[in-house]
Amino acid sequence: MVSLDAPETEPAELPHPGRDELELATVLRALSDPIRLRIVSMLAADQERTCCSFDLPVVKSTGTHHFRVLREAGVIRQRVEGKTRLSALRRQDLEARFPGLLDAVLRSGPRPDN
Amino acid sequence: MVSLDAPETEPAELPHPGRDELELATVLRALSDPIRLRIVSMLAADQERTCCSFDLPVVKSTGTHHFRVLREAGVIRQRVEGKTRLSALRRQDLEARFPGLLDAVLRSGPRPDN
Repeated sequence: MVSLDAPETEPAELPHPGRDELELATVLRALSDPIRLRIVSMLAADQERTCCSFDLPVVKSTGTHHFRVLREAGVIRQRVEGKTRLSALRRQDLEARFPGLLDAVLRSGPRPDN
Repeated sequence: MVSLDAPETEPAELPHPGRDELELATVLRALSDPIRLRIVSMLAADQERTCCSFDLPVVKSTGTHHFRVLREAGVIRQRVEGKTRLSALRRQDLEARFPGLLDAVLRSGPRPDN
């Protein structure tokens, strides 16, 4: 039996909403969780990171869920590379659609601790 | 039988979190709904409004729920006056805790239509 969380069972191209499809309420919902705020804060410091580099205080399937919520809302972009996923913040798309929002959230959110 | 939604069954003083108790994730969650974004946009134009002046496309109990979520998160302040409630945006508290956030949300949110 194949685990539903194994990255290798998913297509290499993960679905992402286009810039024009981003919805304010959906983006706010994606950001409204302490773990997801932490992911976003950590991504703000880097261009791109592997999922396993985050060291989140949750089990792997929960972490996968949080990354998916952020990706489906359009907050992050993810790409599959071998057996890992690389994540990046969609800064330009978010700034174009919701000017100042990401910066305001990052200013008030958790400090990235690594 | 008394309806749970009837304002007259609730205490005159409604509970509100203090400024220092406001949590970013909770505020973002409260804002992450199209109806609640609409309420906030409409409150941005006025000092204070009665709940029944909003003309929301939802039944009364759902509207009451949305106002409660906003109040409990600290986004709005509500006070009971007779049989109605007056709501106001907690602009100064939000700006003190999360600088720029409310303005960014209001810039990108729905236009108040009355």
